[in-house]
Amino acid sequence: MSKENIPNENTSKDSDNSVFIGKRPTMNYVMAAMMLLNEGKNCIIKARGRSISHAVDVAEILKKKFVKAARYVDIRLTTEQLTNSDNKVSNVSSIEIEIAPK
Amino acid sequence: MSKENIPNENTSKDSDNSVFIGKRPTMNYVMAAMMLLNEGKNCIIKARGRSISHAVDVAEILKKKFVKAARYVDIRLTTEQLTNSDNKVSNVSSIEIEIAPK
Repeated sequence: MSKENIPNENTSKDSDNSVFIGKRPTMNYVMAAMMLLNEGKNCIIKARGRSISHAVDVAEILKKKFVKAARYVDIRLTTEQLTNSDNKVSNVSSIEIEIAPK
Repeated sequence: MSKENIPNENTSKDSDNSVFIGKRPTMNYVMAAMMLLNEGKNCIIKARGRSISHAVDVAEILKKKFVKAARYVDIRLTTEQLTNSDNKVSNVSSIEIEIAPK
């Protein structure tokens, strides 16, 4: 009854490791990110526009208070083009903060 | 009449290359940062708290529209402790975006 070593596809999928920052309380996002790190996965905190400040708060609280061994792997800044209801295209800045458990 | 090669101290001083993001219009900060890059210096865009989103906007507009050769050297996230008028200490997230002219 030997178990086969099948690579777990889920861990390599980007969206599974992402935490999108919106308007909920900060601690909700900190806990969601902490669960990923506790499973040994990297976690990517993503935000757009005014939520970018909130994303940095989440990352810093996580790193300073909850998972002290965690480290920033990469911080990416990009611009996304969004089309609003009037069919106008607007540019919105976005951030992706990738954190490793250690 | 040989000129001595005295290293220019100013270029290595951190504060000279910094652009602190506050409540002024975005383009003021973009222009200030662009002047530094045009002199061949690195520029460091700094912000705290709610201004962090604004700092990312400044960096992205600068890079996408004005100095297309520019690149991010480093993006640092930290937490600063501020004391307010009631002597209460509060933690505030901060960002430093270092940009090189090319």
